[in-house]
Amino acid sequence: MFEQIIDHTRSLCPLVHNITNYVTTNDCANMVLACGGSPIMADDAGEVEDVTSICDSLVINIGTLHKQTLPAMIKAGKRANELGHPVILDPVGVGVSRQRTQAVRDLLAEVHFSVIRGNLSEIKAIANGVGTAKGVDAALADTMDCSFDEVIALTRSLASRCNCIIAATGATDVVSDQHHSFLIGNGHPMMSKITGAGCMLTAVMGTWCGANRDNLLQAAAASAAAVGLCGEIAYQKMIETKTGTSSMRTYLIDAMSLLDTPTLLGGMKVEIR
Amino acid sequence: MFEQIIDHTRSLCPLVHNITNYVTTNDCANMVLACGGSPIMADDAGEVEDVTSICDSLVINIGTLHKQTLPAMIKAGKRANELGHPVILDPVGVGVSRQRTQAVRDLLAEVHFSVIRGNLSEIKAIANGVGTAKGVDAALADTMDCSFDEVIALTRSLASRCNCIIAATGATDVVSDQHHSFLIGNGHPMMSKITGAGCMLTAVMGTWCGANRDNLLQAAAASAAAVGLCGEIAYQKMIETKTGTSSMRTYLIDAMSLLDTPTLLGGMKVEIR
Amino acid sequence: MFEQIIDHTRSLCPLVHNITNYVTTNDCANMVLACGGSPIMADDAGEVEDVTSICDSLVINIGTLHKQTLPAMIKAGKRANELGHPVILDPVGVGVSRQRTQAVRDLLAEVHFSVIRGNLSEIKAIANGVGTAKGVDAALADTMDCSFDEVIALTRSLASRCNCIIAATGATDVVSDQHHSFLIGNGHPMMSKITGAGCMLTAVMGTWCGANRDNLLQAAAASAAAVGLCGEIAYQKMIETKTGTSSMRTYLIDAMSLLDTPTLLGGMKVEIR
Repeated sequence: MFEQIIDHTRSLCPLVHNITNYVTTNDCANMVLACGGSPIMADDAGEVEDVTSICDSLVINIGTLHKQTLPAMIKAGKRANELGHPVILDPVGVGVSRQRTQAVRDLLAEVHFSVIRGNLSEIKAIANGVGTAKGVDAALADTMDCSFDEVIALTRSLASRCNCIIAATGATDVVSDQHHSFLIGNGHPMMSKITGAGCMLTAVMGTWCGANRDNLLQAAAASAAAVGLCGEIAYQKMIETKTGTSSMRTYLIDAMSLLDTPTLLGGMKVEIR
Repeated sequence: MFEQIIDHTRSLCPLVHNITNYVTTNDCANMVLACGGSPIMADDAGEVEDVTSICDSLVINIGTLHKQTLPAMIKAGKRANELGHPVILDPVGVGVSRQRTQAVRDLLAEVHFSVIRGNLSEIKAIANGVGTAKGVDAALADTMDCSFDEVIALTRSLASRCNCIIAATGATDVVSDQHHSFLIGNGHPMMSKITGAGCMLTAVMGTWCGANRDNLLQAAAASAAAVGLCGEIAYQKMIETKTGTSSMRTYLIDAMSLLDTPTLLGGMKVEIR
Repeated sequence: MFEQIIDHTRSLCPLVHNITNYVTTNDCANMVLACGGSPIMADDAGEVEDVTSICDSLVINIGTLHKQTLPAMIKAGKRANELGHPVILDPVGVGVSRQRTQAVRDLLAEVHFSVIRGNLSEIKAIANGVGTAKGVDAALADTMDCSFDEVIALTRSLASRCNCIIAATGATDVVSDQHHSFLIGNGHPMMSKITGAGCMLTAVMGTWCGANRDNLLQAAAASAAAVGLCGEIAYQKMIETKTGTSSMRTYLIDAMSLLDTPTLLGGMKVEIR
């Protein structure tokens, strides 16, 4: 079902505007390149409208949000909306501070997002206004006490309220619009020991959505399957080379740079509900 | 003597709040994960108190200090002090600019630190108000003209003045409180060819201190021994694979992600004075 | 012709002040170390004059330019000019926004640069006031419709106007002063799939120019040949190890850390015009 996503991306080479955090920005830029796009990182309010205008999509990530960057995010988001560019939100750590929670409220009020991608804690924090977010990783309680059916219901309901695609990632990723859900079983628990695995996934979504505007749900779901699959490949390589988590991070991006459609189709574990 | 440090950390998985520079933040976040913690990087004054409140420890690193970040550091430090969280200071480059020197003075006046970790130039700059700091690496003169006894006396005296643990790292690391010193001979000169080896050590101290609050001196000393040992392992692997300094950086974090108590106890070169 | 460049650098170990973007700063710092220097990243207006005063050269990179950083760049540049330090400009993405274009105009008006290094789009944008810059990578049109003779004429003319060395990098790099040009055929197309290859080259130029002040044109040209050659070595190693672009990035810095004069002289593809 994801036959065209990668090929479209590699032929179009979409330019992806990223307003993101300073922890994982290098990995995100390299991941955009690895998955077939070209990245621009720019977050000053004085230039974000110019920058986003020449791009194909916009990724907003609040990982190390500075107060002065929020207006830049909103400006860029509004401009991208005017131009019909896909806009992707990664609400990193929403719920860990009142400022971050308010920032997400402001962003949702001002900008229409095509996809919101977070771990289950973050998606719940948005859906409920309150979460049990333990830092920037999914709280264990959140992942344990939710059945697939509940996650599907939650993501569809939020997709309906926000008129967008919701990607709640975890041991199983659930990518939903109002009516359809992709359940994705790819990935490896060791990915949680690499900082930025989530940010990188969001960057891939920004890239693949930018090149597949008529097919956003599939592009978002394919991104989750692809990054998960690359994580499995990277883990395997880490074990074979007797290395550790930093090598696995390198292998994750390596795997994406080598990924082709047959590998994705052969390795993905996707169920449609 | 470090039997419990790693195991406590891996079982508690402390959440470590880092207010740090944008050069080495990704490596520091990956190092926190590799050594058993979970990192949050957040430096906006509007959210640091919320963030640090849900954490187990706080690391303040002035590597690329911005004027607006100093108040955030002080706010977070005061809150962490109220909550009894260990607070670790990495005074990167103190002495290279008047602003940086003044920032350290302000921090020391407002926040109680559990551990201050710097190279010998930086520790001297704090102790004397003046140093011969050559950039962010230890000046050769500083490391040559100081006997171990002098470094021990210097660190204990500063430990007494600041009521904290002082870790002066170099060819031999000296980790002292007022009355005791650990001399640590682990490490490899090639670590100075990797940016952020010091920052990463400070991040490990933040993590291990966060999980071993009743045993801060041992946690700090164990961190220095562990990172040094990982540096030795990484250097060896770099030589074996005929790679270079960037691979060594990767292997350093890899080694930490694989480190267990028997390896640490077997490889550490520690003397107590 | 580049016999002394590396040896001078490794014996002097110049201190390089970088005011740069937060995407590639870690790679740049590691690259400065790998090529024989010592990096300081510092961009707060309150300390840049102090910092640059103890350094040997200054690199200004506008990759993620913030409005408040421009005055810091100008302050540092003026101070470096007073002290006779080489100052290198990387006008990343000039032309993608009016703010970035204006920033380059301001920098050129206030600071004398020793070397300006950009891709052909960026160099054209500076020369013409208008470019066809497609994001931060060289637009295809720019690289196709320009003969070597045209690029030579363009760089020499700009070198004359700015009284500096111009390095226009691409499939073939052209490094010119007013009267002489080095054409450098090293490199590999896959380097464009690594974020920061250009920034890292600029950082090497800053380092090698800092240690070879009487020989800036050769130092700049040698930097381009060396980074290109390291890219070739890294690509070869990526193929041999069946890895991908993130490993290639690691191998690029590795290769620089291992580079010696015989390897550079044996592998460089340089023509003087």
